[in-house]
Amino acid sequence: MNDRYAPVSETAAREREPVVWSLLLGAPDATVGLQRWLYDALRQAIVTARLPPGSALPGTRTLAQQYGLARGTVASAYEQLLSEGYLVSRRGSATRVSTQLPDPRYAAEPLTHLQATPDGRPGREAQGPWIKRLTEHESPFPLSGTTSLPRPFHPHRSDIRLFPIDVWRKLHARHLRPSRLLTLDDADPVGLPALRKAIVEHLAISRAVTVSPEQVVIVGSVQQALDLCLRLLTAPGDAVWMEDPGYVGARQIMHASGTRIVDVPIDSDGLVVEHGVREAPGAALAYVTPSRHAPLGISMSTERQTALLRWAHSHGGVIFEDDYDSEYCFRSRPLPALRSLPGAESHVVLAGTFSKLMFPSLRHAYVVLPPRLVAPFVRAASITARSASGLTQAVLADFLSEGHFDRHIRRTRTIYAARARAFEHFAQKYWHDLIRVEPIAAGLDVACHLLHIDESTALQRLKSVGIAAAPLSKYTHRHRHGPALVMGFAPFNEDETERAAQQVAAGLRNAV
Amino acid sequence: MNDRYAPVSETAAREREPVVWSLLLGAPDATVGLQRWLYDALRQAIVTARLPPGSALPGTRTLAQQYGLARGTVASAYEQLLSEGYLVSRRGSATRVSTQLPDPRYAAEPLTHLQATPDGRPGREAQGPWIKRLTEHESPFPLSGTTSLPRPFHPHRSDIRLFPIDVWRKLHARHLRPSRLLTLDDADPVGLPALRKAIVEHLAISRAVTVSPEQVVIVGSVQQALDLCLRLLTAPGDAVWMEDPGYVGARQIMHASGTRIVDVPIDSDGLVVEHGVREAPGAALAYVTPSRHAPLGISMSTERQTALLRWAHSHGGVIFEDDYDSEYCFRSRPLPALRSLPGAESHVVLAGTFSKLMFPSLRHAYVVLPPRLVAPFVRAASITARSASGLTQAVLADFLSEGHFDRHIRRTRTIYAARARAFEHFAQKYWHDLIRVEPIAAGLDVACHLLHIDESTALQRLKSVGIAAAPLSKYTHRHRHGPALVMGFAPFNEDETERAAQQVAAGLRNAV
Repeated sequence: MNDRYAPVSETAAREREPVVWSLLLGAPDATVGLQRWLYDALRQAIVTARLPPGSALPGTRTLAQQYGLARGTVASAYEQLLSEGYLVSRRGSATRVSTQLPDPRYAAEPLTHLQATPDGRPGREAQGPWIKRLTEHESPFPLSGTTSLPRPFHPHRSDIRLFPIDVWRKLHARHLRPSRLLTLDDADPVGLPALRKAIVEHLAISRAVTVSPEQVVIVGSVQQALDLCLRLLTAPGDAVWMEDPGYVGARQIMHASGTRIVDVPIDSDGLVVEHGVREAPGAALAYVTPSRHAPLGISMSTERQTALLRWAHSHGGVIFEDDYDSEYCFRSRPLPALRSLPGAESHVVLAGTFSKLMFPSLRHAYVVLPPRLVAPFVRAASITARSASGLTQAVLADFLSEGHFDRHIRRTRTIYAARARAFEHFAQKYWHDLIRVEPIAAGLDVACHLLHIDESTALQRLKSVGIAAAPLSKYTHRHRHGPALVMGFAPFNEDETERAAQQVAAGLRNAV
Repeated sequence: MNDRYAPVSETAAREREPVVWSLLLGAPDATVGLQRWLYDALRQAIVTARLPPGSALPGTRTLAQQYGLARGTVASAYEQLLSEGYLVSRRGSATRVSTQLPDPRYAAEPLTHLQATPDGRPGREAQGPWIKRLTEHESPFPLSGTTSLPRPFHPHRSDIRLFPIDVWRKLHARHLRPSRLLTLDDADPVGLPALRKAIVEHLAISRAVTVSPEQVVIVGSVQQALDLCLRLLTAPGDAVWMEDPGYVGARQIMHASGTRIVDVPIDSDGLVVEHGVREAPGAALAYVTPSRHAPLGISMSTERQTALLRWAHSHGGVIFEDDYDSEYCFRSRPLPALRSLPGAESHVVLAGTFSKLMFPSLRHAYVVLPPRLVAPFVRAASITARSASGLTQAVLADFLSEGHFDRHIRRTRTIYAARARAFEHFAQKYWHDLIRVEPIAAGLDVACHLLHIDESTALQRLKSVGIAAAPLSKYTHRHRHGPALVMGFAPFNEDETERAAQQVAAGLRNAV
């Protein structure tokens, strides 16, 4: 059966048993191709001296039978190793491991110690204080992929079907030319100058914010900007103000940073600044969504904005303004950003993302910094996660400066306003006795008040009819609102909304 | 002169003086357009009640003269504010701030306190312990942009002129179609499945590493992967091993993390593992570049790799393998990765980047993790810097799986091998008495030994003739090598190399 097999060493003799070969080579891995797998497994065994120089290999037929492989597959792997000098073969004799390996370093001592304790000390766990704190709460983000459009009424999403993908393709083609080769070179760590200039113009027109391009830095996401600001501005134990309810991602990264989160409640004027001032006047940072509170949808009144700025001025704190979905304001023009108030320049970090307004996988955002924080922020970004691709920045700069962005926002604002009205209409028609939906003035989603049912029962029943929503309790910590569900309306057209609204009613009435 | 001006309040009366208006509105900002600037400045003054409801504005001619603007510019800004309801105008009377502002919230109290202390407490500085440690050393990365191809002999760079940009464009066009709309949707936080599969195949063939796609996570850069691993695996004060000399970016991020860096020397076999074991056997992490040491170019011997793995097994430490420029091996096939050794799976984090092999602004890299670290790593990445764009991942997956990547590497490997020989040749021809260049076996750059001159003098003289190089002392901490310069040869063709080599000789001989 194994006509060519001739042991030449004690090791090889031990390896005569089929079970030893399967231990040595492991299980076949069909995903890389069986021939490839066998080649790799044999080469590894050779270079690590588990198959020492001079040891004989089993005949191709033996190995093929043992693994259920075609004999040709084994023969091809052997041939490749022969051609590369790992094996030698003489007529009438077994194929053996070469005593003159292609690289002398391969003549290594056998890994007997390693093999004697294949596991040894178990590898170190993710046990740093940062990740320990981070994993104390459920992740706000899905940790595995989405492969389809969002289900109704998934919150915090825009409708990617409305994005002008043809324009995006043409702009890519324009930059991917040999004459534009430098686009492939390393971009300015602060961000592409053309993109920063386009953002400055956008901020002046849409957000009443006047800044110079030197204060604008391109990042991958608002989360990244907040993470870096916490690393710049805080030490573990420092107090930070967090909206309660508020954006879960922000809360988690603040918690992970080791800072002490001060939960500041929200009322109909937005953040209750005096509460924060009373509890922690010396806080290092305050996270706010003044244009449209996430997820309650409240705009912070000018009085409160002014009070917040006064706190920053008198205590030296930094305001992190997450300019979330301020572009989608359906009843008037968007409120100016907090950053546009006089005196805000040196105390407000304004962060905004394009991923929400254009499409999620874009992963480009910007941050407007007080002048003194620009250099440290760029330093921190360049050493941790310089992630914005040069090409995408160039394309995005054109998209902004040539008016495509404004057109897209104007068009989608009209569409989302109509969808908000449709959502209100069908909510009234189908759920008026179950859920109270306030008039929607802005945003991509709305906090809807449950009338006779608690959040977890509602969620469970909605899940059974294929409806997505987020419980308001997910966003709250100490200052409870609700029961309520945060529901998104923007990604769903009128038909989709009506069908889903009927499902919501059926689900909540438990009539399915 | 000011025919329509009629003060209606004490505030307005005070504002009669031109100097008050310029204080109120600030200096014109031509970069946003003068009309835009005036509109924004007036609107801000109104919404913040620095111009209270009912107060009169100066005539258009007055304001135009005061700022040196065209009268039409002022009139247009006024008209826009009139049309939006911020201003009212009656024939024969001054233009005034509306008492019925477009949004009732705008009827705010004046920001007198803010203005009384325009600066107040200075804003908080970047003073967290992390950024303080980070800024203790010079940044290894340029903090402002490059606008041209690298100067000879800038190290650590490939030649972007060799990248098949036409293929890259076609792959983009393929994915930017309405039928591929889901590419715009949020990608899997772990990375696009197709890309992870393509990387698994690449690793099996090129690096002898057999892994499943579940262990592969897409990141923006190796730096980001190292930053996240430090956050997962270490607490401040923990010991970590660092190659000395070694990659400056890695050292800085390790230092910023608050860990205690143990400098492990490099000899002709690579990392002197026993030194690390003696000084800090319980280190949490060891950063290594085994395939080709950065910047010395040494490959870690199999004995040392085995010893390193034994240390990890017996002490539970994690090996961070930065698989830097292992693809560019000119004399034999690339060495298998340390991660390919038996027993490495649970103790080695393997990280590699495409930015070096394809083009710098790509900003896509991957990390192969021990199974227990996958979930925490993905958690950490998704909350801090999920930065890899879905489109680029899809394009890169095709580029890999359709063989473009392998073709590109094969082609550039041949070219860089020839350039390495040209570099050796011209170095011998023009500098043989000044700099000793060892035969170049791999990589994009080479550490060149200065014979009769110190590093800073050499750098100064080279700079005067337009030649870039990095002093080896930049990479070293406790264990000095040199004097030497790290010089890149890959981005320069034969002619460019010869011309630059002549300049090097002239500069070093101080003959210019």
